[in-house]
Amino acid sequence: MRTFHATERSLNVEYAIRDVLIPARKLEEKGAKIIKLHIGDPNKWDFETPKHVRDALGRAVEINDNGYAESEGYPELRAAILKKEKQKNGVDVGIDNCMITSGVTEAIQSLVAATISPGDEALVPGPGYPSYTEFIKFFNGKPVSYHNDEENDWQPDIDDMRKKITDKTKFITVINPNNPTGALYSDKVLKQIVDLAGEYDLFVLSDEIYDLMSFEGTHHSPASMTKDVPVVLFNGFSKVDLLPGWRMGYMVFSDPLNCMDEIKEGISKQLRLRISANNPCQMAAIEALEGPQDHHEQINRKLKERAQYMYKRVNNIPGLSMRAPKGAFYAFPRIDSKHWTNDMDFVLDILDNCHVLLVPGSGFDEKYGKMHFRAVFLPPLDTLGEAFDSIESYMNKVA
Amino acid sequence: MRTFHATERSLNVEYAIRDVLIPARKLEEKGAKIIKLHIGDPNKWDFETPKHVRDALGRAVEINDNGYAESEGYPELRAAILKKEKQKNGVDVGIDNCMITSGVTEAIQSLVAATISPGDEALVPGPGYPSYTEFIKFFNGKPVSYHNDEENDWQPDIDDMRKKITDKTKFITVINPNNPTGALYSDKVLKQIVDLAGEYDLFVLSDEIYDLMSFEGTHHSPASMTKDVPVVLFNGFSKVDLLPGWRMGYMVFSDPLNCMDEIKEGISKQLRLRISANNPCQMAAIEALEGPQDHHEQINRKLKERAQYMYKRVNNIPGLSMRAPKGAFYAFPRIDSKHWTNDMDFVLDILDNCHVLLVPGSGFDEKYGKMHFRAVFLPPLDTLGEAFDSIESYMNKVA
Repeated sequence: MRTFHATERSLNVEYAIRDVLIPARKLEEKGAKIIKLHIGDPNKWDFETPKHVRDALGRAVEINDNGYAESEGYPELRAAILKKEKQKNGVDVGIDNCMITSGVTEAIQSLVAATISPGDEALVPGPGYPSYTEFIKFFNGKPVSYHNDEENDWQPDIDDMRKKITDKTKFITVINPNNPTGALYSDKVLKQIVDLAGEYDLFVLSDEIYDLMSFEGTHHSPASMTKDVPVVLFNGFSKVDLLPGWRMGYMVFSDPLNCMDEIKEGISKQLRLRISANNPCQMAAIEALEGPQDHHEQINRKLKERAQYMYKRVNNIPGLSMRAPKGAFYAFPRIDSKHWTNDMDFVLDILDNCHVLLVPGSGFDEKYGKMHFRAVFLPPLDTLGEAFDSIESYMNKVA
Repeated sequence: MRTFHATERSLNVEYAIRDVLIPARKLEEKGAKIIKLHIGDPNKWDFETPKHVRDALGRAVEINDNGYAESEGYPELRAAILKKEKQKNGVDVGIDNCMITSGVTEAIQSLVAATISPGDEALVPGPGYPSYTEFIKFFNGKPVSYHNDEENDWQPDIDDMRKKITDKTKFITVINPNNPTGALYSDKVLKQIVDLAGEYDLFVLSDEIYDLMSFEGTHHSPASMTKDVPVVLFNGFSKVDLLPGWRMGYMVFSDPLNCMDEIKEGISKQLRLRISANNPCQMAAIEALEGPQDHHEQINRKLKERAQYMYKRVNNIPGLSMRAPKGAFYAFPRIDSKHWTNDMDFVLDILDNCHVLLVPGSGFDEKYGKMHFRAVFLPPLDTLGEAFDSIESYMNKVA
């Protein structure tokens, strides 16, 4: 019997956030207790899906048919989403412009598959969430990362972005609030991005999954800043409504001049092929939009305190420094020590010696992420304290 | 502003089962009531998710963390699945050989992406479920359909299968009980397929999603018939446990000689990239395996009666004939009338004139499906009666 070889496409997929779990699991098997700061899952800490949303899922499974939903998504949920997008971002579009996906990941996958032919390029933030880069490569395209400037609180460098546009470029990806840096982009820079897209006939892919998670300033969508440039908004319920395990994402097309009809058709065809997203969870997600909203403020209060705590701790550790996060729940500290020549070694050393799991910065961009790491500030202060006590004492020793 | 063109890959996706909805929706907008026999969704009729499984989802969302699950799936669910597969099919493997997917569709997508490089071939049943064909094309492979012989109750034609193997062939797909024909394959033919795969160093992809839905004979897995040939079992909870809208699928690798480790890695990497399947539904699915099982018998009793009814009705209509289904909930009647030159026209005429929605047979294979249609026998007898009264009187008039 022969050995079956896997495709290059599949073996090339890298997702550092989950890949680092493999060495951590080995330590756990030996009995170690690991503080896991690697994954953006608030529900692993003292954040819980609001009770009215959980109850709505219990009701949905009783009163709904539990059969397939419409491929593009449950119409009532899409209507509720469009109501939110109109209120928050002034995006006033018909229901055909909203599609429900199994997490934002499925939105990324299907949009990239509908947009990127072999050799095509797309701009992605560097550092940025790896799924964009990976799916563009998966479909034989070329992700081109633009510089997010640490010296300027990780704001995108518009001059660099402009330099990287070629006649192969299809779209500009913006993640704001940003994963992995916790940056909140200024209105000025967002407007510049939209104008740049307009100038070069590109569309903007705007990942807004952390939109209601900003604790220094307010999130604005690039879709609210243009009357003609097409903006595809990616969003969902995982983060701001604390239900990542439900896998509820969506995309909304703000396309005032109807330039994207063929792309929408290419996505719809893929969504029909996979039949539907989870039906009872779609029904319950309506409650997340239309029920009480006070959990957002509570979440942001916690996140602000924890972000400030991590900022203070990290900047007091020799060999580490970081910018103050303003949104999401990620920090992206810089490793500035001759003891390590790459961030993966640093992460493995911290795992082995401090039993704290971080993600190597190179996993978010080979160039702009190197010699950094990503950590979540989701845990309560005492757990964060324990993690950074351990890192501090280890760094004092070796760095 | 330019028009954005979609990729060939995405625009080429065809999924007749959902694509036929588009003309049906137009009729509905005009007030027509359509009897929808197009989609394999039992919950749209008098089938309901068992109460103990629904209750388990209500409990899961209360006691579980609603965060992400493990990328390969919730370990307790995987253990429960492997217990079932051992009991039913004698497949005795470790937990790393079981992965949970968002419906079988995600299993198809990720396995094909990990297996098919551009130009590679895979054998698929003709007629067969279109997702196999579509995903193989999506990843630039070539689906090659083997003949399922209507004259022999739609059993696969092994000689034809053998003729279609080339040095590019990667695997043989078997769907049993079959979608769209309702056939249940004989042990003899399954053993021949496994032997053929062994002879040519191929693996078998065995879609068993209807395994417990057979009402004439019992389903056996090809995995139970070999000690060396690798068989990948695709299965899930959508059909036999009546929860298609939960999107709970799985794959199990029966790979006694460990030939498929690289393929498993290529799939795991994709599963990590999409983070996890729905977490509370995974927890609740355990109850579907470990709770009361009497719903299977009740379902099969209904299906048998409805299959026999449709068989009698269709074979009494001039211009139509069909084989008796033995499993699943699909019939695949032949259109034998000079009034139509292709099955899509037939389906659109029946939709317009009888307000019954069928799926054109060509959507299940251009060659072996043409001049047929697929219909589900899920509705109660009075609804099926209404549909076939209308088709019969129309066919008497025109055919």
